[in-house]
Amino acid sequence: MKIDLNSDLGEGFGPYKLGDDKALLKIVTSANIACGYHAGDAVIMDQTVRAAKANKADIGAHVGFPDRLGFGRHPMHMDLAELEKHVIYQLGALYGIATAAGHKMTHMNFHGALGNMAFVDKELAEMLVNAVYSFDKNLILLCLANTEFSKVAEKKGFKTANVFLADRAYDDNGILVKRGLPGAVIKEPEAVTERVRQFLNDGSITSINGKKLSTPIHTILVHGDTPGSVTLARNIRNLIAHEGHELTPLSEMLA
Amino acid sequence: MKIDLNSDLGEGFGPYKLGDDKALLKIVTSANIACGYHAGDAVIMDQTVRAAKANKADIGAHVGFPDRLGFGRHPMHMDLAELEKHVIYQLGALYGIATAAGHKMTHMNFHGALGNMAFVDKELAEMLVNAVYSFDKNLILLCLANTEFSKVAEKKGFKTANVFLADRAYDDNGILVKRGLPGAVIKEPEAVTERVRQFLNDGSITSINGKKLSTPIHTILVHGDTPGSVTLARNIRNLIAHEGHELTPLSEMLA
Amino acid sequence: MKIDLNSDLGEGFGPYKLGDDKALLKIVTSANIACGYHAGDAVIMDQTVRAAKANKADIGAHVGFPDRLGFGRHPMHMDLAELEKHVIYQLGALYGIATAAGHKMTHMNFHGALGNMAFVDKELAEMLVNAVYSFDKNLILLCLANTEFSKVAEKKGFKTANVFLADRAYDDNGILVKRGLPGAVIKEPEAVTERVRQFLNDGSITSINGKKLSTPIHTILVHGDTPGSVTLARNIRNLIAHEGHELTPLSEMLA
Amino acid sequence: MKIDLNSDLGEGFGPYKLGDDKALLKIVTSANIACGYHAGDAVIMDQTVRAAKANKADIGAHVGFPDRLGFGRHPMHMDLAELEKHVIYQLGALYGIATAAGHKMTHMNFHGALGNMAFVDKELAEMLVNAVYSFDKNLILLCLANTEFSKVAEKKGFKTANVFLADRAYDDNGILVKRGLPGAVIKEPEAVTERVRQFLNDGSITSINGKKLSTPIHTILVHGDTPGSVTLARNIRNLIAHEGHELTPLSEMLA
Repeated sequence: MKIDLNSDLGEGFGPYKLGDDKALLKIVTSANIACGYHAGDAVIMDQTVRAAKANKADIGAHVGFPDRLGFGRHPMHMDLAELEKHVIYQLGALYGIATAAGHKMTHMNFHGALGNMAFVDKELAEMLVNAVYSFDKNLILLCLANTEFSKVAEKKGFKTANVFLADRAYDDNGILVKRGLPGAVIKEPEAVTERVRQFLNDGSITSINGKKLSTPIHTILVHGDTPGSVTLARNIRNLIAHEGHELTPLSEMLA
Repeated sequence: MKIDLNSDLGEGFGPYKLGDDKALLKIVTSANIACGYHAGDAVIMDQTVRAAKANKADIGAHVGFPDRLGFGRHPMHMDLAELEKHVIYQLGALYGIATAAGHKMTHMNFHGALGNMAFVDKELAEMLVNAVYSFDKNLILLCLANTEFSKVAEKKGFKTANVFLADRAYDDNGILVKRGLPGAVIKEPEAVTERVRQFLNDGSITSINGKKLSTPIHTILVHGDTPGSVTLARNIRNLIAHEGHELTPLSEMLA
Repeated sequence: MKIDLNSDLGEGFGPYKLGDDKALLKIVTSANIACGYHAGDAVIMDQTVRAAKANKADIGAHVGFPDRLGFGRHPMHMDLAELEKHVIYQLGALYGIATAAGHKMTHMNFHGALGNMAFVDKELAEMLVNAVYSFDKNLILLCLANTEFSKVAEKKGFKTANVFLADRAYDDNGILVKRGLPGAVIKEPEAVTERVRQFLNDGSITSINGKKLSTPIHTILVHGDTPGSVTLARNIRNLIAHEGHELTPLSEMLA
Repeated sequence: MKIDLNSDLGEGFGPYKLGDDKALLKIVTSANIACGYHAGDAVIMDQTVRAAKANKADIGAHVGFPDRLGFGRHPMHMDLAELEKHVIYQLGALYGIATAAGHKMTHMNFHGALGNMAFVDKELAEMLVNAVYSFDKNLILLCLANTEFSKVAEKKGFKTANVFLADRAYDDNGILVKRGLPGAVIKEPEAVTERVRQFLNDGSITSINGKKLSTPIHTILVHGDTPGSVTLARNIRNLIAHEGHELTPLSEMLA
């Protein structure tokens, strides 16, 4: 099986760093880069793009709400027609930085509250998908399977890549259990690794109630901003090789 | 003679409007659009791009310092390597908005303090020109003639368009007299129109000391944020036709 | 009867103006001043405070969400404990500007989405009231009558001032009809003036269904950002004198 | 001898942390708190104020340019009359947060580029001092001795506290050697500690050329954002006790 590892990177701002991007970029095959709205700035975007290029990792735009203070995690109820333009602005900004650095933006995903809202809000999901389509209909869209967003993206004809959040619990319908609910976040690195191993071996994820789900998965998300994340990411990478699978950037997998 | 009329547009922000973009876009042939740093935002950029397209006006990126509070008029001494990325970010952002709206970005210029500093600072000018080059070497660069910036831009092989600021006094070397000095700004609309007429008739500009300058000019800047600017712009447009010249967007003139 | 006229002022930002503050400050007796979050900045706050002082108008803090782009009109779901500190920050900032200008901040109110959410959300209302209490329990709180916010404010022991929005329809319970619903906004200046006249004459407001409401009112809100607002405000001011009532700043009325 | 230890704290923003404020607040006697312009926000200000109160440390406003991206280190050439209001705004904001938390703001200093510019620019120094004076003439001003700023502050009647930057070289006139020049920053913790020891023993600082300077010093600055800074701060604190001096907050020392 071909599988991609992705991580949300370039999430610093001005004088501030977040996560160990340098180490993670030696491990992951796809980088989702913050575009200066919820996090990131032109300088950090450029550094992340160049480091991804040096490590032959794919780059994509990680698009969020205009909310640095809340890191894009505050649900904001913006006018959809206005939000559409802010999505395009962020795509263009990363396209510019990538072009100047000689790398190519091949995917995108939505961050934080914006992403969460698009899982369940069809109207929002349609606007977001249309926004991306108007800029570049060949971008691969990172999705959670079984969400409004993934359905809309597929219907529009986009290549989609289903993401496995190995450190998050799923319900019996393959939907993420909400943060804040008991058991929603899996904190022990061993348990996370074990979930990855199960998925690699038989293609399944076990729901919080013990049901086996068989959602197709293209990429595993590695969080970068928690302690121990680099080690965990490295373990997952090694596990993929050890179990006989092939780490492959999304742009190549879905070419 | 072919001549272009350009104006700095899209300079509002969120709830704020600045200038009568709608009226000016029926008059000018090139729009320089603020990119969200010193002014403008994704929504206003989109509106301006679409209005320019509807009026068959060229669009270009108007790139400034990250300084909304000071409207990009505060000189800022940023690290050049960092500033370079902020320039590219702005170009990419407008590229994105333009692409989604089905229009093409064909020129760019620098705003306010950043533009002024680049007239006299060769090292800064070189960084700015390199930044644009790394993103799109085919963009037309709007210049003031006889400045460090215009020299560097030409040397790098860019198509440049010399701008005539009809409401600003020039010294005997063809350099703008600094704002704040007596006579630097020409406020009477008739005097401004008269300077345009002289330029259209014999290709010359009279310096503040009475010397005739014969700088080649491709485009006349029409300020949008002063009272009476729309009438002045319309008068200049009519004058160009009346004197037998041809209003032509830069992208066509320098094709 | 003593009655106050209030207006939301100082809503510009950097290079941007909004409304004719200068004219309105000759008419109103209380100014609600934006504090740099949804609008306003230190320079505009200072200008507004000094103009209010010169016109013997009260000043109060107009506190909003950290959302310049949306002018504080986007509902944001922030952590309440964090939002509390942002409220205090804004109060302190205006206190600073007022102190340096030799004027005294005597009231406050909440702007846009934040204000609207506090009308119906008791938990939010309690946090907002506690935030103000921790900074200055003697501030007068501008309220819409019959809301969660006004109940919480009164219970906490604050002096409250009920605001009459003469250009907005009320339902039979004295609650504002939501913007967007038919008839919610009364646009004809004569109709607005007539509603003020009725209130001045018999203390009543007629609901959208024709029911007479007799809510006690301390102050009438005059919007500053709509065309014709200065004339409307002047007419209301004249009406108050003509009907034999006394225009009185809140700090004096509720002393 | 009584001596104060001060540190620049609360320099995070939204999701970002900078330095180990918690540890440093157990060591220093005065905290200079960023006010939301170059760094900090309402939430972080509140946390820092409360932690300072719990540790019986003085608090002061650390006032900077409106420049988060550059952390207030970009020299900005703003209109002085406008900058004055931005200074007052920041003082008021921290006053608000401190009042609500039950602590008292007793000093202030200027950050980064703004502070550096005020050392040498008398006109700027006068504006800054006047700004503080208009808000609270009893605040203690942290100064570098022998600068325009310290002279202006003393002449205006302010209590001033001279700061010793133990990790920076001084020239023979007691002025800091500019960052970037060879030897300007003293990096070895032992050398820094040794300079503190010399100062504690005989009240002198040795200049970069070996000249003994005898500037009166009230407080030693402990940098918080470099690796090892907590240990260094603790060593300096222990040294003060060991050499028989008394650690004393500025507000008590200069009461």
